This record gives sequence, structure tokens and C-alpha cells, in this order.
Amino acid sequence: MSTRVVAKFGGTSVGSIERIRHSAGLVAEAARRGEAMAVVVSAMAGETDRILGLTQELGAGLGDAETDVALAAGEQVSSALMALALREAGFKSRSFLGWQLPVITDGPAGAARIAGMDVSSLEAAMDAGIIPVLAGFQGITQDGDVRTLGRGGTDLSAAALASALGARCDIYTDVDGVFTTDPRIEPAAGQLEAISHDEMLELAAQGAKVLQTRSVEFAKARGVPMRVLSSFLDAGQSRGTDVVASRDVAERRIVSGVAYARDQARIALVGTSNRSDLPAKAFAALAEAEIGVDMIVQAQARSAGSVTLEFSVAHRDLDKAQAALDTALPGIDMTSETGLAKVSVVGSGLRQRADIARSLFAVLGEESIMVRVLATSEIKISALIDNDAVERAVRALHAAYGLDQV
Amino acid sequence: MSTRVVAKFGGTSVGSIERIRHSAGLVAEAARRGEAMAVVVSAMAGETDRILGLTQELGAGLGDAETDVALAAGEQVSSALMALALREAGFKSRSFLGWQLPVITDGPAGAARIAGMDVSSLEAAMDAGIIPVLAGFQGITQDGDVRTLGRGGTDLSAAALASALGARCDIYTDVDGVFTTDPRIEPAAGQLEAISHDEMLELAAQGAKVLQTRSVEFAKARGVPMRVLSSFLDAGQSRGTDVVASRDVAERRIVSGVAYARDQARIALVGTSNRSDLPAKAFAALAEAEIGVDMIVQAQARSAGSVTLEFSVAHRDLDKAQAALDTALPGIDMTSETGLAKVSVVGSGLRQRADIARSLFAVLGEESIMVRVLATSEIKISALIDNDAVERAVRALHAAYGLDQV
Repeated sequence: MSTRVVAKFGGTSVGSIERIRHSAGLVAEAARRGEAMAVVVSAMAGETDRILGLTQELGAGLGDAETDVALAAGEQVSSALMALALREAGFKSRSFLGWQLPVITDGPAGAARIAGMDVSSLEAAMDAGIIPVLAGFQGITQDGDVRTLGRGGTDLSAAALASALGARCDIYTDVDGVFTTDPRIEPAAGQLEAISHDEMLELAAQGAKVLQTRSVEFAKARGVPMRVLSSFLDAGQSRGTDVVASRDVAERRIVSGVAYARDQARIALVGTSNRSDLPAKAFAALAEAEIGVDMIVQAQARSAGSVTLEFSVAHRDLDKAQAALDTALPGIDMTSETGLAKVSVVGSGLRQRADIARSLFAVLGEESIMVRVLATSEIKISALIDNDAVERAVRALHAAYGLDQV
Repeated sequence: MSTRVVAKFGGTSVGSIERIRHSAGLVAEAARRGEAMAVVVSAMAGETDRILGLTQELGAGLGDAETDVALAAGEQVSSALMALALREAGFKSRSFLGWQLPVITDGPAGAARIAGMDVSSLEAAMDAGIIPVLAGFQGITQDGDVRTLGRGGTDLSAAALASALGARCDIYTDVDGVFTTDPRIEPAAGQLEAISHDEMLELAAQGAKVLQTRSVEFAKARGVPMRVLSSFLDAGQSRGTDVVASRDVAERRIVSGVAYARDQARIALVGTSNRSDLPAKAFAALAEAEIGVDMIVQAQARSAGSVTLEFSVAHRDLDKAQAALDTALPGIDMTSETGLAKVSVVGSGLRQRADIARSLFAVLGEESIMVRVLATSEIKISALIDNDAVERAVRALHAAYGLDQV
């Protein structure tokens, strides 16, 4: 049996008839190479925002069941257009809407989860030589109500379809693959041939905007191999990056990439050491206010009897975070700092290398870049530094960990 | 049980959030009066053409199954928006898509027929105090493929839903009801309180653009009472016109209205009388070329041995018609005339009044308007006249048949 491939195209890749035709050409080329293709599409760029705007004018935003009904229309149109473009390219093709498989979801409107997917009709089409085009981002409840999967949900639709078909999941986007860092900052940035799901997740969480996190998590859990490719190059011109299980990353690099995120803020809370409920109360208040918290450090201060809790939040959330903390912890000693950025070094090899943290301090120290907060995970080290120092830090770390040679 | 009413809103009545809100207000007002409401909507004005244009760029127009998938998205959006607007107006509401009832269709893509409709879930919603909003114009095949009903299909969806619910079918449009003739030509034109399905059908076929013919035919066959109302006036401001069974038209008018259609052409074919296959061949060729033929007159010419077949077509179809006839009947003696218009007098009372045709000649004769072709049906008399004479003819006939007093 020929390799099965699910090709996913996002909004910009189907943003106009010209773009749809080009994307269909990439699918056609893969089909001619002998790959058994299925396609998943987002709404045409701008459509989701346009439709969401209409529902908002009527007082309903994301999370309303009727908003989901309206939004799902966007992928309905693009799936039909992609099927027509594939037909124009010489293949048999047809669209499948979420309810037609069906794609069964649970969870709330506007942010549903895929609970299951019946691919029998879609597989029958493939077996009959028809390229199926699934409308992404949408499914239905057990009761037959329309649901959408939330922003970026089409990546998730593609990963789930690939899992159900035992296929590879090719995510076509506007970059040629995953890079060791942002080529706009470090021209020596190299494209990775392969990366593990875990590394991709950390890179995504640390600011790299290549893949949607939920789809990588899903792919990791189900063991779905992914590939990131450009839909803007001609067929065969995009080398792409494979996103695979750790054991399948041939090259045993220690560090795979350097990511960054600007406009961070740091909050420090100082409490007495007998106030053991401080972290719990603080994070409960922030969660209630729907503020994402990152890079948490708790330190016992030198002066006995006090404890410091530090963490970073996005700058735009700072005021809201301080207000929430003031309410939850009246009279707390709270300081904050803005104008910060986060740089992160990501790599599966970090697991075995405890000295990476020390060398990161050394590299940044040589550049006279002060580290405000340092946080580590299994395969990632992040440092909070001055916004102004981002470029220098990215370039220095990229060189120090040998990524210039990738 | 309170009166059930299906309210249908066309594209201009849901053409913007403001228009949707206004239309929802009309439904809310009727619901507050105690009517049990269900709503059927078209796509927002311009959407169907926009989406059709996209499919056409990919070489597929009306009649393609994927075009239907794309087009159905238009009503999907407007049904959700209408449900949101009704909620904003203080009512419980939800959208129903064609596949959710389902509305089962047969016939070709782009011009499907409604074969059946399961309204149990929609009725359950009504019984629970929820105003259902059905996406018009769409249904599915027995196999679950999306189909649309063709232009104006939302009127048909509304009539079918009204039939299934035992409801009256209120068609909201941009006019206040059905008039005795076009008020732009005859300021004395009056609005009819009631008209029969048959009269409405003839008026529509003769150029009045108030209702879509298929929906009136459906309503007539199933005995569904209709009402034509304006969605642009405030609640209670539109008097409307009832379209009902002939026996229910209280007022026994002889003539209900005068309609007209400009830009007609006349074709005359002269054959020998032993050529008895002339009409059959001519009309087969025109049907093949999908040209609508109107006002057919066959006359035995005075000179023995020849027969004349005359009929009218729309001016835009003239070249195509002549080419088709040339091919089907090589060497036929064919003449044509353009710059013509059709005026029609419609009324249930014509059945009993054979002298109407004679008086029509008399009225037009007084105005020195030459009648090129005259054709009659059970409840209609049409005359082909000069384009230039349309206004005078409409006004003269309107006055002569007492319509100025309606």
C-alpha cells in the first residue's frame, strides 16, 4: 500500500483562488509521486475573523453555539473550493464536512475537543481514487450540534485524521520548516531536518509560531509523524522538517533551537515564610483572571522569615495580574518590572546535560546580559533578560550551542 | 393552539446586522402577539453571488455538487446570525441547517427538489418555546450530500416548512404586498388585500417579481396560505397581501392586476402545411438550447399550403434561438422582430368572461397601440406590443378594468 499522507493547508495557503490552486498543485504532485493523499483545510484567510465580527455585533462571541454554526461555514466554502481545484488539476476529489464523517466532539462551543472520528466514508473515497478534502476546525456533538475546535483547530483536525488513517501529517505553512532560531535575527539559522514532538512543543511554547501546540500534543500522544512544509514554494522545493518521536530523531543534537518572546513582565511577591498559602492563593487568583503564568521561581530569602515568589507574565496582562493579586492577597509586598524578554534553549539532549544551565549563564555573562529569572524544564532552559538584549542573546546562544553548523 | 407562522426573509432582509436586527424585531413582535413563529432565511445579500464567483473561477458553476457545498455556507451564516438576533430581542432561538432536520432532496445539484422534510426536532424546539431558524435553500440527498434548491429556493424551503407545520407562510420582501400593477408606472396602483395562488403565479410569470414561482406552485398544491409583507417597514406597518386558494379570495374581482415584461422578441416561422412536424421540431430545438418560449400562436395562413408559427422569446435569447432553429430546420422561412414588450391582464374572473380579450383589443386600439401577438390562458391575457408603448398600455388597462378603484 502506498504511503498515506494528510496534507493540511492553513488560511493563507487557501487565501485566494490563486493560493488554493497552488496548494492543490502541491497535493497533485504528491499524488503523482504515488502518495495516497487526503487534505484538510482552514477557512480562507480573514473569513473566520469576518464571521466572528458579525456574531460579535449581535452580542455573541467565541463560546456561543451559534457562533460555531456561523464559523464552520468558512471551512465549508474552502473545502469545496479545494476539491474543485484538485479536480481542475486532474484528480477526482470531493469535500467532507465535519458532520458528514462525522467528527464527534465534546467540550465547550468554540473550544471543543475531538472525541472520535468515523473515517469509513472518507477511506472508501480514497480507495476509489478520490482525494477527500475535510473541512478542518469543525465537528458535531453526539446530539448533532455544530462545534468548532478553537483557533488553530485545523491542525488538530489534520493530526486526528492522520491518526485515524495511519498517515503522516504534512502541515503546509508559510515557512519552509523548523529553524534553529528566527532567521530574521540570526542569518546563520539553519533548517532542522527532524525534531522531536517534545522539542517542537517547547519551541512552540517559547515563541516559535510554526505549529499549533494542541496538534503536536495530539500527534505525540498518538505517535503521528508530522512534517512542516512551505505551501508557498513550488512542488519539491520545500525541504520541510519532520516532527517525530524522540527515538526517531536520527541526529542526536543536544540543542535543537533557540526561541524568544518579547514583551514579558516580571512580578515578585514577598511574603513571610509562615504564609505557606501564598503560591496557592496567587496562582488561583491568576487562573481565575485567565492570565498565563510562566517561569515560576520560589526562593527562600537570606533574611530569615521571608519568602519570594517570582514569575513572568505577558506585558499586556500585567495590570490585570496585579489587580487580581491585590484582591486575593490584600497588602502583599508586590514589585514588578517590564521591558523584559524570554530566550529559551530547547533540546532533547538537555535531559542528560546538567551543565547547560551553567553554560547559559556563562554565554550571556560574556555578553554582559543580566539574567533576571531562570527556569528549566526537562528539555528547555529559559532566561528572562532585557528586551534590548534579545538579538545579542539569540545570536550568542545560537553560536555557543553549535547551531550555526546545522 | 396559537397560529403557527413561518416567516421567510430574503437576502436584502438579512443583508446586514442592522437589517437582521430589524427582521428579528418583526418576528419578535409576531411572537409577542401570540403567533408560534418559525423563521427561514436566505444568505446575506451578495453572498451567494460572491461564493458562486469563487467556484466559477475554478471552472465549476451551478450544477456542480461542490458548488452546492460552498453555496450552502451562506445560509448557514445567516441562520446563526438570525438566531443570535432573536436572542438579543429576548427570545430563545437556535439555527437548524438542512442536514440537521434533515431536508431531503432529489433532483440535480444546483436545482434540487424537496422530497421530504423531518420537522420533529424543529417542532420540539417550538414546543419548548424556542424560535427555530431554518437555513433556507439547502437540503441533502438520501446519501448525505449537500444540495441547493436553485435561485429563490428559500421561498420553497419556507413553503415546504409551512406545509409540514400546518403553518401560514409569511414572505417578507422589499415591497408591502402585491399591487394591481407597478406603482412606478401607474401611481394609482393599489395594493391587493388578497389574491389567489393561480393569479399570483400568472402575475409572477408575466413579470411581477414579488414571489418565486416554484414556491407559489408548491403552496397551491399543498394548500398553504401565504402572505407577502415588507421587511423594511416597522412591525404592524406592513398591510401585506394574502395569497390563498381561489375559493378564499373574498373579493370577486374580474381582473387582479396588470403585469409587464420588456425586451421581448418575436420569431415567426412559415412552413408548408404538409410539414406537420414543424412545431415539434422547433420547440424541441429551443428546449435543447434551454430557451424559454412564451406566447405561442399557430395560424393557418390565408394562402393555402402554408402555416405560420409565431412565438416570443426574451430578447437576450434571440440569437441563440435563431441559431438553434436554423440547425434543426435548415432552410426554414424565419423572420424576427425586436423592441417588443408583453403586457398581461391577470384575474380569476377571466374564466367566465370571454369578452375580456375583445375589450383588451379595444382599450389598446383606442391608444393606437398595435397588438403583435395575443395569447390567453385560463386566467390571463397577454399582448405583445412595442416597448415604447408599455407605460401607456399599463395605465390604460389598469383604468379600463377598474383597478384604479382598488
